[in-house]
Amino acid sequence: MALIVQKYGGTSVGTIDRIRNVARRLIELQNEENQVVAVISAMSGVTDKLIALAQQVMPNPPAREMDVILSTGEQQSIALLCMAITAEGYKAKSFTGAQAGVRTYGSHTRGRIENIEPKLVKSALSEGCIVVCAGFQGVDADGFIQTLGRGGSDLSAIAMAAAIKADLCQILTDVDGVYTCDPRVVPNARKIANLCYEEMLEMASSGSKVMQSRSVEFAKKFGVVFEVRNSMNNNPGTIVQEENHAMESLAVRGVSIERNQARVTLSGIDSSVAHSALILTALAQAEINVDMIVSNTAHDGIARQSFTMNMSDLGAAQATLKTILPKLGEKATMESEGGLAKLSVVGVGMRSYAGVAATMFQSLADAGIPTGMIATSEIRITTTVEAGDIEAAARAVHTAFSLDAV
Amino acid sequence: MALIVQKYGGTSVGTIDRIRNVARRLIELQNEENQVVAVISAMSGVTDKLIALAQQVMPNPPAREMDVILSTGEQQSIALLCMAITAEGYKAKSFTGAQAGVRTYGSHTRGRIENIEPKLVKSALSEGCIVVCAGFQGVDADGFIQTLGRGGSDLSAIAMAAAIKADLCQILTDVDGVYTCDPRVVPNARKIANLCYEEMLEMASSGSKVMQSRSVEFAKKFGVVFEVRNSMNNNPGTIVQEENHAMESLAVRGVSIERNQARVTLSGIDSSVAHSALILTALAQAEINVDMIVSNTAHDGIARQSFTMNMSDLGAAQATLKTILPKLGEKATMESEGGLAKLSVVGVGMRSYAGVAATMFQSLADAGIPTGMIATSEIRITTTVEAGDIEAAARAVHTAFSLDAV
Repeated sequence: MALIVQKYGGTSVGTIDRIRNVARRLIELQNEENQVVAVISAMSGVTDKLIALAQQVMPNPPAREMDVILSTGEQQSIALLCMAITAEGYKAKSFTGAQAGVRTYGSHTRGRIENIEPKLVKSALSEGCIVVCAGFQGVDADGFIQTLGRGGSDLSAIAMAAAIKADLCQILTDVDGVYTCDPRVVPNARKIANLCYEEMLEMASSGSKVMQSRSVEFAKKFGVVFEVRNSMNNNPGTIVQEENHAMESLAVRGVSIERNQARVTLSGIDSSVAHSALILTALAQAEINVDMIVSNTAHDGIARQSFTMNMSDLGAAQATLKTILPKLGEKATMESEGGLAKLSVVGVGMRSYAGVAATMFQSLADAGIPTGMIATSEIRITTTVEAGDIEAAARAVHTAFSLDAV
Repeated sequence: MALIVQKYGGTSVGTIDRIRNVARRLIELQNEENQVVAVISAMSGVTDKLIALAQQVMPNPPAREMDVILSTGEQQSIALLCMAITAEGYKAKSFTGAQAGVRTYGSHTRGRIENIEPKLVKSALSEGCIVVCAGFQGVDADGFIQTLGRGGSDLSAIAMAAAIKADLCQILTDVDGVYTCDPRVVPNARKIANLCYEEMLEMASSGSKVMQSRSVEFAKKFGVVFEVRNSMNNNPGTIVQEENHAMESLAVRGVSIERNQARVTLSGIDSSVAHSALILTALAQAEINVDMIVSNTAHDGIARQSFTMNMSDLGAAQATLKTILPKLGEKATMESEGGLAKLSVVGVGMRSYAGVAATMFQSLADAGIPTGMIATSEIRITTTVEAGDIEAAARAVHTAFSLDAV
């Protein structure tokens, strides 16, 4: 008998029929001699409706009360799913975040999980119930509701799996797993059977948005093995766990892409100024996330710095940097460029294989694709390319690292 | 500085505009140097929508999960009301039943309040917040949600007023208070300024459905003074409190009517059988509420028993009683009659005034209205009349006891 946590997103429980489908999947899992905990989101669309209702009252409602109203979305879906399980003749009990013992801290609408006290969940499991928990929510020390922000339900599932020492945590979604590249871009892409946490993190941060980084980080911290799989079929998905030797047999495990990128370059900076601190503090205060940062200082004491960011942040970044430009030196200038994309190769094997960067850039050169900024981590190499080149670039690199399906 | 609890029903918070109206009323009350706690229902219509959604999953959903989904209605309205208060520049905090410390026991969808631990409510008040609590809900010892059933929000308000030792509990509704009779029936009816708990109970149980009896009983038990008043104006309402001498100066304080009544009479009962137990047990098992019961035994050992009930229960009562008829004796027969109404006069002064019944029945006789069954309590006299006679009967009695507005 295994103890399994399954997470279903808003689309998977988006209609009464889909809720019935999830109910049958959970029952099937229990019938295979497992103890089953489901962690679910609000029915798709419900959260948006609640936000619209709140905004009818005021444009920017207090976060504390947003949490109170938003958390009703999951509270409705857990009840409906338990009813659907009951309708099939099986036992089920729903748990709000508070009832599941999810203790949070931090800010409203951006809560973080402090710990989970799953006493009542365990006792419902021992009564033979399928347990259905509301994702995305918990309560602070006073019992006041905090939601966990974007991707919060994945985090709830992984934290619950850690708390009840589940054998497996399955993240049910609308794709079969993590692919070597987006199959819409690279038709030859293959599903990856196993990834380690670090690879999953690099894939996520470089654009493969199957899951938010913080859920993967949480899983890594507490050693939760999880599987990303499809809620509409029973295909095996991608299992994410600790690194093992088999994973190192390939230098590159996946290629990820991210569109809608922009670059800003500041030139002519007087390098005697603490310019990096000035620039990055100003951007952080304006809540602009910069991603790649490339910085050079020439012999003549003149520095140059470039960053990438999402296109949507470009306007704000330009406005912010304009105000500090005079502090960067008399000759400081700013230029920027939209219409970019990022291409990354990821793999823990990269540590032990030489020449990964050489292979990557040679394949791009052979395909006649110019590259721009370059950034690297221990297990990732990223470059910018023109947006129009990204698909050809992904295919060229995918083939160069022998990732194509045979 | 007074501490005031105000309860607003679903109609009073039925639209965003009405929620804004309630917000302004609460703010006004706070500006008059009061500490303010609002207890509110779900927006009107929301509860019905949630029931319909649940019934899409299964016709008779488990009560535990009904409580989970139904309680989201109030959870949404408390958040919206707090937003509306915040939008006006005032401080507000919402509390679900669990957060307000409302501990319940009993069955799901029919919970009863065990006690309230209002620590967090008090601390929000001392921070200068207007406190907004979800009516109709609490949690059991495990923290699982129980709703309180029909009229539950009134009960929540009165129990909260008792727990925080409020100076006054105001039940805001769509009428100006309790009237000497329904003004649609008796145009000369007057609003009653003061009633004692017992009178309010008798008025409620005999058809003046401003509040459910159990809320009044709870107020009586804990000595909570409450006022029924209109949410759409600032007119003084009806204050309900302990009996005092002023109340006894009138024999009859109000006339209440109840339509849609039916009568069943069982005749020819062998009185050597424990027939009352047989009959009433059978009706109770079929969940039929009987109201007036009149029982006679003649010298020849033949008994006769009549009861009134709501018309909607008549079919079930007939079916139930048919099955036990043979046990009541060989000659036992059943006959029934619909199209009745009940007329009651209520007043604590009745105890010290003789001839109240005489005045009542003389006035009905003078108006040419035949009466049927009669039942009395210490402070109430009730008779059945033909449904078509009820309005004339109410006016005649109202005038006879000098209740008409001058």
